[in-house]
Amino acid sequence: MKQGNRIEQLQIAYIGGGSRGWAWGLMSDLALSEELSGTVKLYDIDKEAARRNEIIGNRLTALPESKGQWKYETADSLEEALRGADFVIISILPGTFEAMASDVHTPEKYGIYQSVGDTVGPGGILRALRIIPTYVQFAEAIKSFCPEAWVINYTNPMTVCTRTLYEVFPEIKAFGCCHEVFGVQKLLADMLEDMLGINGVRREEINTNVLGINHFTWIDSAEYDGMDLLPIYKEFAGKYYEEGFGKHDIENWMNSYFESAHRVKFDLYRRYGLIAAAGDRHLAEFCGKSYLSSPQDIASWKFSLTPVSWRMDNRKRLIEQSERLVNGEEQLKPKGSGEEGVLQIKALLGLGDMVTNVNLPNIGQMAGLPMNAVVETNAVLSRNRIAPVAAGRLPAEVESLVMRHVVNQETTLRAGLERAENLAFRAFSADPLVALGVEDARALMREMLLNTKEYLPGWDLA
Amino acid sequence: MKQGNRIEQLQIAYIGGGSRGWAWGLMSDLALSEELSGTVKLYDIDKEAARRNEIIGNRLTALPESKGQWKYETADSLEEALRGADFVIISILPGTFEAMASDVHTPEKYGIYQSVGDTVGPGGILRALRIIPTYVQFAEAIKSFCPEAWVINYTNPMTVCTRTLYEVFPEIKAFGCCHEVFGVQKLLADMLEDMLGINGVRREEINTNVLGINHFTWIDSAEYDGMDLLPIYKEFAGKYYEEGFGKHDIENWMNSYFESAHRVKFDLYRRYGLIAAAGDRHLAEFCGKSYLSSPQDIASWKFSLTPVSWRMDNRKRLIEQSERLVNGEEQLKPKGSGEEGVLQIKALLGLGDMVTNVNLPNIGQMAGLPMNAVVETNAVLSRNRIAPVAAGRLPAEVESLVMRHVVNQETTLRAGLERAENLAFRAFSADPLVALGVEDARALMREMLLNTKEYLPGWDLA
Amino acid sequence: MKQGNRIEQLQIAYIGGGSRGWAWGLMSDLALSEELSGTVKLYDIDKEAARRNEIIGNRLTALPESKGQWKYETADSLEEALRGADFVIISILPGTFEAMASDVHTPEKYGIYQSVGDTVGPGGILRALRIIPTYVQFAEAIKSFCPEAWVINYTNPMTVCTRTLYEVFPEIKAFGCCHEVFGVQKLLADMLEDMLGINGVRREEINTNVLGINHFTWIDSAEYDGMDLLPIYKEFAGKYYEEGFGKHDIENWMNSYFESAHRVKFDLYRRYGLIAAAGDRHLAEFCGKSYLSSPQDIASWKFSLTPVSWRMDNRKRLIEQSERLVNGEEQLKPKGSGEEGVLQIKALLGLGDMVTNVNLPNIGQMAGLPMNAVVETNAVLSRNRIAPVAAGRLPAEVESLVMRHVVNQETTLRAGLERAENLAFRAFSADPLVALGVEDARALMREMLLNTKEYLPGWDLA
Amino acid sequence: MKQGNRIEQLQIAYIGGGSRGWAWGLMSDLALSEELSGTVKLYDIDKEAARRNEIIGNRLTALPESKGQWKYETADSLEEALRGADFVIISILPGTFEAMASDVHTPEKYGIYQSVGDTVGPGGILRALRIIPTYVQFAEAIKSFCPEAWVINYTNPMTVCTRTLYEVFPEIKAFGCCHEVFGVQKLLADMLEDMLGINGVRREEINTNVLGINHFTWIDSAEYDGMDLLPIYKEFAGKYYEEGFGKHDIENWMNSYFESAHRVKFDLYRRYGLIAAAGDRHLAEFCGKSYLSSPQDIASWKFSLTPVSWRMDNRKRLIEQSERLVNGEEQLKPKGSGEEGVLQIKALLGLGDMVTNVNLPNIGQMAGLPMNAVVETNAVLSRNRIAPVAAGRLPAEVESLVMRHVVNQETTLRAGLERAENLAFRAFSADPLVALGVEDARALMREMLLNTKEYLPGWDLA
Repeated sequence: MKQGNRIEQLQIAYIGGGSRGWAWGLMSDLALSEELSGTVKLYDIDKEAARRNEIIGNRLTALPESKGQWKYETADSLEEALRGADFVIISILPGTFEAMASDVHTPEKYGIYQSVGDTVGPGGILRALRIIPTYVQFAEAIKSFCPEAWVINYTNPMTVCTRTLYEVFPEIKAFGCCHEVFGVQKLLADMLEDMLGINGVRREEINTNVLGINHFTWIDSAEYDGMDLLPIYKEFAGKYYEEGFGKHDIENWMNSYFESAHRVKFDLYRRYGLIAAAGDRHLAEFCGKSYLSSPQDIASWKFSLTPVSWRMDNRKRLIEQSERLVNGEEQLKPKGSGEEGVLQIKALLGLGDMVTNVNLPNIGQMAGLPMNAVVETNAVLSRNRIAPVAAGRLPAEVESLVMRHVVNQETTLRAGLERAENLAFRAFSADPLVALGVEDARALMREMLLNTKEYLPGWDLA
Repeated sequence: MKQGNRIEQLQIAYIGGGSRGWAWGLMSDLALSEELSGTVKLYDIDKEAARRNEIIGNRLTALPESKGQWKYETADSLEEALRGADFVIISILPGTFEAMASDVHTPEKYGIYQSVGDTVGPGGILRALRIIPTYVQFAEAIKSFCPEAWVINYTNPMTVCTRTLYEVFPEIKAFGCCHEVFGVQKLLADMLEDMLGINGVRREEINTNVLGINHFTWIDSAEYDGMDLLPIYKEFAGKYYEEGFGKHDIENWMNSYFESAHRVKFDLYRRYGLIAAAGDRHLAEFCGKSYLSSPQDIASWKFSLTPVSWRMDNRKRLIEQSERLVNGEEQLKPKGSGEEGVLQIKALLGLGDMVTNVNLPNIGQMAGLPMNAVVETNAVLSRNRIAPVAAGRLPAEVESLVMRHVVNQETTLRAGLERAENLAFRAFSADPLVALGVEDARALMREMLLNTKEYLPGWDLA
Repeated sequence: MKQGNRIEQLQIAYIGGGSRGWAWGLMSDLALSEELSGTVKLYDIDKEAARRNEIIGNRLTALPESKGQWKYETADSLEEALRGADFVIISILPGTFEAMASDVHTPEKYGIYQSVGDTVGPGGILRALRIIPTYVQFAEAIKSFCPEAWVINYTNPMTVCTRTLYEVFPEIKAFGCCHEVFGVQKLLADMLEDMLGINGVRREEINTNVLGINHFTWIDSAEYDGMDLLPIYKEFAGKYYEEGFGKHDIENWMNSYFESAHRVKFDLYRRYGLIAAAGDRHLAEFCGKSYLSSPQDIASWKFSLTPVSWRMDNRKRLIEQSERLVNGEEQLKPKGSGEEGVLQIKALLGLGDMVTNVNLPNIGQMAGLPMNAVVETNAVLSRNRIAPVAAGRLPAEVESLVMRHVVNQETTLRAGLERAENLAFRAFSADPLVALGVEDARALMREMLLNTKEYLPGWDLA
Repeated sequence: MKQGNRIEQLQIAYIGGGSRGWAWGLMSDLALSEELSGTVKLYDIDKEAARRNEIIGNRLTALPESKGQWKYETADSLEEALRGADFVIISILPGTFEAMASDVHTPEKYGIYQSVGDTVGPGGILRALRIIPTYVQFAEAIKSFCPEAWVINYTNPMTVCTRTLYEVFPEIKAFGCCHEVFGVQKLLADMLEDMLGINGVRREEINTNVLGINHFTWIDSAEYDGMDLLPIYKEFAGKYYEEGFGKHDIENWMNSYFESAHRVKFDLYRRYGLIAAAGDRHLAEFCGKSYLSSPQDIASWKFSLTPVSWRMDNRKRLIEQSERLVNGEEQLKPKGSGEEGVLQIKALLGLGDMVTNVNLPNIGQMAGLPMNAVVETNAVLSRNRIAPVAAGRLPAEVESLVMRHVVNQETTLRAGLERAENLAFRAFSADPLVALGVEDARALMREMLLNTKEYLPGWDLA
């Protein structure tokens, strides 16, 4: 398979391979990667979507500027996609946007606002309950058909998805990837320009120690070219505390609708003295009412709730784009997505070590959090190996904020595995966003379960 | 000092010795205890109140039915009270009822209702901040004047008070006592009557394993005469879930204004499968909005908020009673208070072992909670020794509910020791009752600090 | 079953019921116990021995001075003994004295001397390997036939036996009892006489905190009548360090051949500042070569190796005595054995709480040792409940000495369960007494395994 | 200081800068490193030796083939060496070879053989006691004069030296380096040639997970080019178990006198299923008598004891060589030493990340070992940052072998800091090599202390 520095005949299984956006980004990155070639098997319950991506991918590969030679194929079954796979990429939507609309908007009746609704909070918990059985199936299939493959998860809720894979198949070689930390590294690069006039710093040049759980990660040391960035951040957070910081990152098309002015991060710095390392929309959801007490309050914190209607409209746009790409009215071009998936694949193939933040079961990298909880820290990726970097321990108060979600996610996992409403309610009612009387909380959870019951097979919701 | 089975010339220092209620109960129990005699030194910043209790106590001792011969003296200083003490009893009010009114009622502006306001929640935290410096002083004085004395704390917030004593003087022989678990043991005795027709069971005959922290303790096994009480409780909690259980305990005059129908306990049983072991008023405050979301909601849970105005009126009544007792218009009679203080003193003097629930630093008795945190479990009291019983571990979800308060109380302690508003806000904003936007939370804490600033010497509250 | 303060129709299963000594002691204690009556089912693989004890027991019961009315019956099977049992007592010999001779004396070829050979060291490990499958069987039978019974283990190796019961049947209500700590409490009573002229103190009046593992327990605080005994012990250990202390305890016929002058204890005090709480013969075996480097060295430490030949002779004497007791030439008299078994049974029946040292899985009572390891600390025994007392933590260096045996015993358990020679050798070679070249260690273990292979069914010892 | 990719005016303090061997290797590596230039300040209590190295170093720099431009200066004081330092290298001998002769050979009287005597065992402990006060001094000086400098320790006992630095100055940026793991990586490369005919693999291409403590490190996964090396090692260890493996590594002049046939490693593999990752001479010393029971036994394991007389002779040879180098009769040539010091310096300067094994306080990288213990695992070195890789946990039995040394080294540290003979004896007698009667152990330790008392200032050895 390896020819000099080239890896050929690589086989990648893409579960959720009908996705737009994520799939196109990956195709684009693969096209740019001259050391690699092989086959990508696209599997999706929306088989038509997979087939369209097969066409789009093969057309992209045919472009002269595409260096990596890749063949895209639609797989009829999970088994067909997985057999022989060297890598498995999972990026799916649990249920539909209609289900997600229930996740995000039903709680609004009770004054609970969620900016994303896919990680924690009522929405994140319901989403987890829907996705756990699917991930059980994935883990079992990987164990049967490609137990040695590397598995990269992109689906949210990241922690629960990755944790489920390990729960079912403890020897799995899986990890979860998320670009939220990158955005904060870009903010630090912008900060260098704003505060010190240093231009053109790439986010990869900002070295950070990352610790926490996905979407609620923290940076307790950061450095650029020998400079300690924490004292500069202190100034920066103070300078822009009231107004927010405006040089938004618009380069990355994936993110452009999800802006904020970083006021939540600045306030978390003021409270805890650390850099919170995710987008404000995600951070806010871990902090109970702090930044989500009312629409006005949210507006004053300068981030926005992402309505599911936007996602639906966006899907329409992407489907239209997808048709144009299939018809040849538009052409996907190989340009970097800013994601690290292909770099990680290369590192695991032995084409150069890399250090980046990933989600993995705790073997000690996060002191103070339970062993086996899925945590996010840096890790060294090298040939066929991923070793988390020991990140140390969070300050007691931040650890406590994180811990309640760690425990809650573990309870959610058990609820999803056992399809147990009582366990689900322990998690639901313990979420800091669910600041309701217990009867209201029960009524809300029940309504959300019933709304999405077609995605909850085996639950007794009579 | 020991004469056969009698202990004479015992010296007890009573800090807060001007108290009504508690002090009179102790005097009464001492009068009934024929094995003991000695001196009680009453120390109080309200010296007049101490002096009145001196008269009341000595008059009680003079009654023919008083077996224990005790002399009551007012001490002019902490040092005078403590020098030579064998036992130190601490039962004080931090600040005034006016300060307590701020603790309890200021948060109501923001929709935060507190049934007691002396343990956790905004009120509990502010009360802790006021009391920590006082307890630092007590610990230092005990270290100087009677380092070998046994110290029994009755003051709330129990956990923080006891923790402060150990923080300042780690070798102190202190523990905290609280009667809330007794009330639940009485409830279990009532349950035996109600469910099985077994009458006349005394609460001491109900054996329970107690674990948790003060006012948020749990019972995970309970037994009467070889019978496992958990399955019976399951039936009982189901039977009275909606209406509540009505055979209220009215024997104990200390408790008569603090009734509930135990619906919070029954709901906690439904949620977690354990018996929550404190009064509903206290339990509710640890559970965020669950049982305290609105006055209507609270009413439907069938417990009541204790307004501070009631405490003020009650004080007036007690002062009047105190005057009658001093004038001889009324006579304090020796009858058992239902409290265990004197039994504990006897056990520590070697007059018979006892097992009861107390608050002590964790040396392993509560697996899963941090070492040195003050936890409440059973302990064996024997001559000059108190050994906590290993209580095991709480279920994950309950442990998580408890843990957030454990961490918060530790942060509160550091805030109080360092007089640091930033640390205080970490605790304040992490309390599950403070389900507010962060700006509102800041405004509320600041208002509460300013309201009580005369009891916060050394704080920079400009 | 309960009639006022009397418990009738109690059923006790005695596994190893053909034993002499232990069985007679128990019979004697039962005869003295007026609150109890019932049936003892004697089960033994040596059925004749059980039958002889049946006769002896019933004859004892018939004596006018016997208050407790007990019927002794021989059980034909484990099932017959266990069905309906309220209590199970286990006191057996794994293998024969011939096997024990191999345990104790084979290692002498390699300069390894063992004073007992039944706990740790090469002998203790081999004994454990033999006994584990038997205890697996006991645990399974108890689970099937009397899962609610209280199980009291007296067999050595105590830790491994008790640990095996819990490994197989985690809900078992078992604990292990050992009188070694009592001997040290008696020594402390003797010390009071010797050093302070205080006579007639009973060992039960000496309160101690006990912590460690069976036969390697420690006392870090001790008290008599309000007096701290540690400073006195310091003087005492110094005074008798060279000569040893000579007032040997000869009251207890069970112990009379197992005397020492306590020099090992005094030396351990010198080294670690704690009171080692077992007989010197047992303590020495945990300490590698320290007190067992050569026969001369052992003699200078003033304890003796117990040759298995003595045990064989003693058995002969006991068999003869047994025959005399059966024939009526001699009469067993009800007199207290000094053991606590019957007191513990009473406490568990609700006839009065007691605090004593027992062996139980760690639920936190021994901080610093792994959860679930069987440890020895005090516990409170009350009706149908045994709650270990949190004993705190050993000093680092003592903890380390203890820990290596804890890990080793866990490995031994796995070796015995899996019948795995490789695992057994990990334990064997890690024992501090096995200070041999690895080839010698392998040869020794193999010889010991082969010597006793008839008691190692299922092992592949080809 | 940074000019493009060049770092100029770097300042290195070399404590022990009069050393031969190590110093010359470093000089050689610096001469080869074209990106770096600056000053090396040589500090040594043997100032003449430092001065000779100054001459040798400057002469080396002057060679045309030397790319890195370095100036060597002798420092008169520690302060002079440290002020302004960017890096501090510490490589010293505690005491003299005469002291080391006592460490290594005195125990032989008691049948205790040590192959090196500088890490654990009687010799390692005595060496630690001598060196701790010196390292206290170093840590204080670094704190005063160059608190931001990176400190690389090469001195043995590595663990205790590094631990002392952190004990005294917790914010120090220190780590310990040792080449023993490299030798095992070379062995794995040789294995690839021997077993699979794969030639020319460099040790850097063997990826390993390293865990344990210095000189008792283990490898639980190893990979070359996607191949799992553990199954191959199993074959390899079996094939050469009896005879040992003979392709000795003779490239590295530093190591040529310290060969072995790896039989100890093969036997440890047989016992524990892991690759022990240090030279056999070091490994053996951690394993009690296993491989060191007698000179004959040692010979059969095919490694040799390094007599201190050899070290003395070698010193003589090196002094002669040093004189030749000073006189110009011989010329030091820039050729790679095989050590990684300069690579690490470059990585810390931001000239390329590297992953290698280092000794650092445990922040979670070694699950199962105590926090703050100095452990050896991989770490990522990048600009101004060193982050240990989470290495997971050792199997229980190996962990237990390691743990006893971890505890012992901590006790040794306290003994050295407090100059407490009693504490020293706790460590000494707990070392598995000290399989002696306690009186002999006491006599031996005392003799060793007295032999070296001039290096133990402040000890009360009367």
